Amino acid sequence: MYSFSCDYLEGCHEEVLKALTQTNMEQAPGYGADRFTAEAVEEIRQACQAPKASVYLVNGGTQTNQLVIDTMLEPYEGVLTPQTGHVNVHEAGAIEFSGHKVLALPQVDGKAKAEDVEAYVKHFYADGNHEHMVFPGMVYISHPTEYGTLYTAAELKALSEVCHRYDLTLFVDGARLGYGLAADGTDVTLPLLAQLCDVFYIGGTKCGALNGEAIVFPQGNEPAHYVTRIKQHGALFAKGRLVGVQFAALFKDDLYMRICRNAIEKAKEIRQIFEEAGCQFFIDSPTNQQFVVLDNAIMQKLSQYVEFGFWEAYDDTHTVVRFASSWATTEEGIEELRKAVRICFAE
Amino acid sequence: MYSFSCDYLEGCHEEVLKALTQTNMEQAPGYGADRFTAEAVEEIRQACQAPKASVYLVNGGTQTNQLVIDTMLEPYEGVLTPQTGHVNVHEAGAIEFSGHKVLALPQVDGKAKAEDVEAYVKHFYADGNHEHMVFPGMVYISHPTEYGTLYTAAELKALSEVCHRYDLTLFVDGARLGYGLAADGTDVTLPLLAQLCDVFYIGGTKCGALNGEAIVFPQGNEPAHYVTRIKQHGALFAKGRLVGVQFAALFKDDLYMRICRNAIEKAKEIRQIFEEAGCQFFIDSPTNQQFVVLDNAIMQKLSQYVEFGFWEAYDDTHTVVRFASSWATTEEGIEELRKAVRICFAE
Amino acid sequence: MYSFSCDYLEGCHEEVLKALTQTNMEQAPGYGADRFTAEAVEEIRQACQAPKASVYLVNGGTQTNQLVIDTMLEPYEGVLTPQTGHVNVHEAGAIEFSGHKVLALPQVDGKAKAEDVEAYVKHFYADGNHEHMVFPGMVYISHPTEYGTLYTAAELKALSEVCHRYDLTLFVDGARLGYGLAADGTDVTLPLLAQLCDVFYIGGTKCGALNGEAIVFPQGNEPAHYVTRIKQHGALFAKGRLVGVQFAALFKDDLYMRICRNAIEKAKEIRQIFEEAGCQFFIDSPTNQQFVVLDNAIMQKLSQYVEFGFWEAYDDTHTVVRFASSWATTEEGIEELRKAVRICFAE
Amino acid sequence: MYSFSCDYLEGCHEEVLKALTQTNMEQAPGYGADRFTAEAVEEIRQACQAPKASVYLVNGGTQTNQLVIDTMLEPYEGVLTPQTGHVNVHEAGAIEFSGHKVLALPQVDGKAKAEDVEAYVKHFYADGNHEHMVFPGMVYISHPTEYGTLYTAAELKALSEVCHRYDLTLFVDGARLGYGLAADGTDVTLPLLAQLCDVFYIGGTKCGALNGEAIVFPQGNEPAHYVTRIKQHGALFAKGRLVGVQFAALFKDDLYMRICRNAIEKAKEIRQIFEEAGCQFFIDSPTNQQFVVLDNAIMQKLSQYVEFGFWEAYDDTHTVVRFASSWATTEEGIEELRKAVRICFAE
Repeated sequence: MYSFSCDYLEGCHEEVLKALTQTNMEQAPGYGADRFTAEAVEEIRQACQAPKASVYLVNGGTQTNQLVIDTMLEPYEGVLTPQTGHVNVHEAGAIEFSGHKVLALPQVDGKAKAEDVEAYVKHFYADGNHEHMVFPGMVYISHPTEYGTLYTAAELKALSEVCHRYDLTLFVDGARLGYGLAADGTDVTLPLLAQLCDVFYIGGTKCGALNGEAIVFPQGNEPAHYVTRIKQHGALFAKGRLVGVQFAALFKDDLYMRICRNAIEKAKEIRQIFEEAGCQFFIDSPTNQQFVVLDNAIMQKLSQYVEFGFWEAYDDTHTVVRFASSWATTEEGIEELRKAVRICFAE
Repeated sequence: MYSFSCDYLEGCHEEVLKALTQTNMEQAPGYGADRFTAEAVEEIRQACQAPKASVYLVNGGTQTNQLVIDTMLEPYEGVLTPQTGHVNVHEAGAIEFSGHKVLALPQVDGKAKAEDVEAYVKHFYADGNHEHMVFPGMVYISHPTEYGTLYTAAELKALSEVCHRYDLTLFVDGARLGYGLAADGTDVTLPLLAQLCDVFYIGGTKCGALNGEAIVFPQGNEPAHYVTRIKQHGALFAKGRLVGVQFAALFKDDLYMRICRNAIEKAKEIRQIFEEAGCQFFIDSPTNQQFVVLDNAIMQKLSQYVEFGFWEAYDDTHTVVRFASSWATTEEGIEELRKAVRICFAE
Repeated sequence: MYSFSCDYLEGCHEEVLKALTQTNMEQAPGYGADRFTAEAVEEIRQACQAPKASVYLVNGGTQTNQLVIDTMLEPYEGVLTPQTGHVNVHEAGAIEFSGHKVLALPQVDGKAKAEDVEAYVKHFYADGNHEHMVFPGMVYISHPTEYGTLYTAAELKALSEVCHRYDLTLFVDGARLGYGLAADGTDVTLPLLAQLCDVFYIGGTKCGALNGEAIVFPQGNEPAHYVTRIKQHGALFAKGRLVGVQFAALFKDDLYMRICRNAIEKAKEIRQIFEEAGCQFFIDSPTNQQFVVLDNAIMQKLSQYVEFGFWEAYDDTHTVVRFASSWATTEEGIEELRKAVRICFAE
Repeated sequence: MYSFSCDYLEGCHEEVLKALTQTNMEQAPGYGADRFTAEAVEEIRQACQAPKASVYLVNGGTQTNQLVIDTMLEPYEGVLTPQTGHVNVHEAGAIEFSGHKVLALPQVDGKAKAEDVEAYVKHFYADGNHEHMVFPGMVYISHPTEYGTLYTAAELKALSEVCHRYDLTLFVDGARLGYGLAADGTDVTLPLLAQLCDVFYIGGTKCGALNGEAIVFPQGNEPAHYVTRIKQHGALFAKGRLVGVQFAALFKDDLYMRICRNAIEKAKEIRQIFEEAGCQFFIDSPTNQQFVVLDNAIMQKLSQYVEFGFWEAYDDTHTVVRFASSWATTEEGIEELRKAVRICFAE
């Protein structure tokens, strides 16, 4: 049964696999000192138009968030995030486990607003007891968000401006960054992120790699002894080549953008299928995650034909479900979905 | 230039790569719920003759040590280890970072002795102030050790006996386990480890995989909600298939043992080369790491022909260097070394 | 200028000081093994009608909360608390610093409701992704709350019932417990707390002592090696006698209850003074904290005669301020306040 | 039975008690903002001839060590200490609990040598793998040491010089500082410590106070938001006056030095008593701790007359025991000891 349940269902893109295969028996030093990692770093710097950037490749999203947040915050600081932020909800408390409070902001479509950040910070410093409270030290956002939505360049600029005015670090979780950059009509680019953020990461696991996320410090502004910090968090690859080879492949000839575009095209087809079936969407998402409101009876039937994700109850008789496409989604998969929807809605 | 500088220089064994390639586009659920991981777990249970074993696949050695030690110790407990243990020396303080003291024992050839463990524990409880001290809660050993040496079955039994008599957890770091199991004359087997240890891991990164270590709890004795614990440590794979496919391949038809045997054969050739050159060995290692004492001038010359690892100064004119073989070491590499040694010692 | 700004403005009650003075030169062993601590523990057990209770005396409130929460939770668990709970707002992130997420519940008058706890827990376990989230492991409430309000016995019973049905620890922060127990019309007593809670503490710092809080585990149910745990948190007194003498004095002949009653009587006078001046109260508090809504101009004037605490803006022209009484509040202080209010409201 | 078992057996010096009594009902703001704390800080600055010094008063020794070490080290750094250092042995792992490795140095009479610090640091940076190891970030020493011995000014200068050459923080644990400063023939003074150390503390608990240690940052060089850091560690006093009053009293008219001198005089008498009995001393201590080697049979008898501390086995028939004097040791106590020794050695 074809699955749309998430965007990490397959291995890696064939070009990535080819690169792994071709380089497999080449000897390379450990801990990221290999030539593939150097190549990946250089490609990423160019893609970001950030020649001074430091880039570190680690394994997965929660690990990256825990590492970046813990190492970029002072011990007395917490991280502001929209209430729906991944670090606030679905990381098993990994941020608090490393000692920092997650400070929840209001969210609109999964996004934080610059004015809410400013209001929080002003309110905090106006409070005579703030030395007894957790200092806001960073703003964490996801792009795309957990709801598949995107910030505009203007929204990011406003966030960046307010962060830097109040000495907050701006960190963008890009676990699905490729699907944001490849979306229709977005004006957010890698160079823009490199300009506006203090640190962000480019997701590999969900965007064509077997594993791996590339953390970018655009100004070479990582904390001292960062390899040691990574190791201390249990996040340093002995065989750094594994992710080096993959990111070098992903950033050669724009592969990353090209394969992510497939997810967008397929998401549009998914959207169309449900629109034609007369369904409502929980949220308007321009990226690879589509949140559809389904009648519970139809949801049950449909689950016998294709796999998808349960999101949350909508009302007594409807449920929000998620269909995720990816670089790997096939036209055959889409056809299965189309047929299944036809059958289930026809009855 | 051929390198013997460590045992993680190449990618993965061709059979492992084949398995990754063949399964690449098959859809599989995340977080270790895939069929490959299930297969790997089952193969490992059989290889260990431990049908109740719980097996978790994570990324690397330091991560594994940090995770296992932190989750198996009570907060008031520390971990006993020979002074030369990896967790005591080369993990950037990852164990202390997670809150636990490393309690150093004397070492002989990199090994801990059961009597030293017992002496430590007895002395601890005899001290009237021990409630103000760190309780010994675990014994950590590496097999093979950081010096390439091996415990005998009798030594492991003695350690296991003393651990369980004093309610200590016995944890074996098997980052290079394959090279220990494949060594000449060893009487230590996977089923024996499963019998004697409370937890151990089977190294993949250094033994044929791109990455990955398999943590084995032989009696299904992992702490509650272990997936959550792994996630909280930033160590949970979204795409668990990556390590699932690899360990399934490594444990099918005894591949793991067969490819590790190559390292042993090559290590014997390395040993012979230096014996014939009249060199002294720093330690007598039956596994894939060979520690040779070289005259400094010769060391300099040799480094122009092959790569190897600097270990420590031996005396004013000699240095201990390490030559590591692995599953990937080629006969061509050995020949380069042979020639280089001939040249350097002839001069 | 007389101050009502908080309830820890003076040293200790004269009977407590007398006990410190009388025992001052008596030699006593360290770390809580002294006879005064033993006496205090026994008195507290009797007051709680909990003969099996374990009692530990530590220094202050945040320290106590951090210690209790960290030692009573599993690492994968967080603590539920009304949004206004002290641990969520005014402890500088001490709970997260020790690794645990604070899970905010809705609050009504500073209190958590049993049905909200149940809803949270049911929703949590119903979520298919809950292994990726923070497990609720404890309910933390303050009695009196941060708003001076009190739980009824029925409310506490409902909380206790829901906690134990879902295997949550119930922890009551009693930094101001004396003022709750001494309030008019309350049906909550020490024996009731000992029956319903898994752990609670009896505040000394705000209720007659120089310093010190008494943690009570009613069933002797503290985690193993608790002295070591306390020490590890930096919370073990070398000279445990200091708090032992004080709690022994406070719990002899019901002193604690008698002196806390003074705060209640004085709070009623404060209330009457502002009622007569026609003021509104922000919240209806039966304990020693009174939250008055003042016109900003009057507030400014009043602050030239007596000290009080700024709480929060009420509207553009009014502010919520806090007047706290204590065991030490004098009739002279109340008279100063009465005069000041007359002057300021007369103008 | 008179006790010499430790130096925290009594309450506080009568002058300190008098100050607590006289100020008891004066209202004072919380968290160290009171006038007593301000007075104590000013007195300490003067005694240290360090007008820019920041001074923070906290509760006890382990708490102080944990707080200072954790806040002054980077996360990737550990603390060097003589193997016998209190933080390495008798603090229940509080330093590791806060994430930092204790790096043990050789000890001579409980002291660290500047050359051993230098050797450690040089060896560390010379190791090609040092990014995988714990960086030395601080030297922790006790003065007096755990063995009652003292550094000379020259030794401290050498340590300070090597620390600052290699960018290490020098931290002196002064839990018993008064007994070091009051010892015969010492050339170490408070102004010298303020010159040489980055941070040190002046012990109150063992030197005349009910509780409290004064942390001194001689150059006002504490980390940012130190009150918040203290609170986050659970170490901030609500009623800071308690320690403020005591330190103000101790540092008025040189009281601290005068009362500590009593311990030295009494220690000399203890020493003389055992010398006359023909006993050997385990170590030559000029301060308030005297380590006597006793025949086991005599030790048993003596323990029926006076209390003292067991230290460690000396040989099969002898034991090292500790007699501690303090500001509170009485001439009557000394006489009891003298008689007891006479009786036990006469038999």
